[in-house]
Amino acid sequence: MIDIAQVTLLLRPKERGVHLITEEVVSQIPQLERFETGLLSLFLQHTSAALTINENADPDVRRDTGTFIDELIPDSYRNFRHTLEGPDDMPAHLKSMLFGCGLNIPVSKGALALGTWQGIYLIEGRDYGGSRNIVATLFGRVV
Amino acid sequence: MIDIAQVTLLLRPKERGVHLITEEVVSQIPQLERFETGLLSLFLQHTSAALTINENADPDVRRDTGTFIDELIPDSYRNFRHTLEGPDDMPAHLKSMLFGCGLNIPVSKGALALGTWQGIYLIEGRDYGGSRNIVATLFGRVV
Amino acid sequence: MIDIAQVTLLLRPKERGVHLITEEVVSQIPQLERFETGLLSLFLQHTSAALTINENADPDVRRDTGTFIDELIPDSYRNFRHTLEGPDDMPAHLKSMLFGCGLNIPVSKGALALGTWQGIYLIEGRDYGGSRNIVATLFGRVV
Repeated sequence: MIDIAQVTLLLRPKERGVHLITEEVVSQIPQLERFETGLLSLFLQHTSAALTINENADPDVRRDTGTFIDELIPDSYRNFRHTLEGPDDMPAHLKSMLFGCGLNIPVSKGALALGTWQGIYLIEGRDYGGSRNIVATLFGRVV
Repeated sequence: MIDIAQVTLLLRPKERGVHLITEEVVSQIPQLERFETGLLSLFLQHTSAALTINENADPDVRRDTGTFIDELIPDSYRNFRHTLEGPDDMPAHLKSMLFGCGLNIPVSKGALALGTWQGIYLIEGRDYGGSRNIVATLFGRVV
Repeated sequence: MIDIAQVTLLLRPKERGVHLITEEVVSQIPQLERFETGLLSLFLQHTSAALTINENADPDVRRDTGTFIDELIPDSYRNFRHTLEGPDDMPAHLKSMLFGCGLNIPVSKGALALGTWQGIYLIEGRDYGGSRNIVATLFGRVV
């Protein structure tokens, strides 16, 4: 039978930077284990943070990613007009758009079909972003 | 019952830059209201424009996004060979790839489950891009 | 009837750069022709390569894309710490995140509903990346 489930997840507040959140996400979707084959769609309901996937092992990958994007999109960029909410706001919007606020991950035998070294990242663009909501939608064949 | 619907939307021609298109998109998908829980997949059938999601309030966010990406990927970049269609063409291809030509948005109670400040953007990369097609595919539980 | 199919594809090893892989992907998904209306989700199970969509005609678009991103994210960037696996590794992780490891493409009448000029690209970030796996998940109405 083909079924669908939808749940809203809450991520605890995180500091600006790049965070591995695979466990925090998966632990909030107990419905996952019912799905034999399917797709999990994650959608972050915010405009100043992003979801992406990369290496789950060496924390330096997250550190280097943060370093690089803070230099690519500097708070000090001189041509921003949208600065009322602080110098971290417009760079956070751009990071959200470049990395994207959504992910679609295949599901197989009740678990995410990630590669061996893949984990889910939250890129928090704000200095004080607060907690973040993700809408998780699961489609697929249930047993 | 789980159902699927697919429709091709037409976006009116827009000038180069970043445009809020939430209403132009949603108004062309009347099927949305039938879906209690689901996912809307939007796919732009073009290689020189992009779809992304960001702030729906201050127009300066769109302006600043355009300013920043025109400086990040300048028309004057010296190492492009694909220049027969004009200096805006290859930068438009790169913008399309960096921001992406697809979006997947959760659907709840017959409406898009966007965050309060989220809207759908079209990033038009060409000076005269003309009208644009989006294939919209809706999956989910219908009432 | 709404159905789902899932299959793991293997991409042959490719050199660093940008490659058109539409045929290599589609030829490994014979299930596609059963789907009257639907969505194909492609998910690359790797952290140093990316999937994106762009022009299928002029090879210079792929060449220019490679040139631009190698300059945007140079192997010689001085602030990377994650360098044990070589100077191409951290840039490859960033390319994977900026372009993304997933694509969702609409399916219509048993074929991908791509625009006339659209093709699927693999961005290989490593000098010797080896073969790559893609998990393909197909949802939709079957005849």
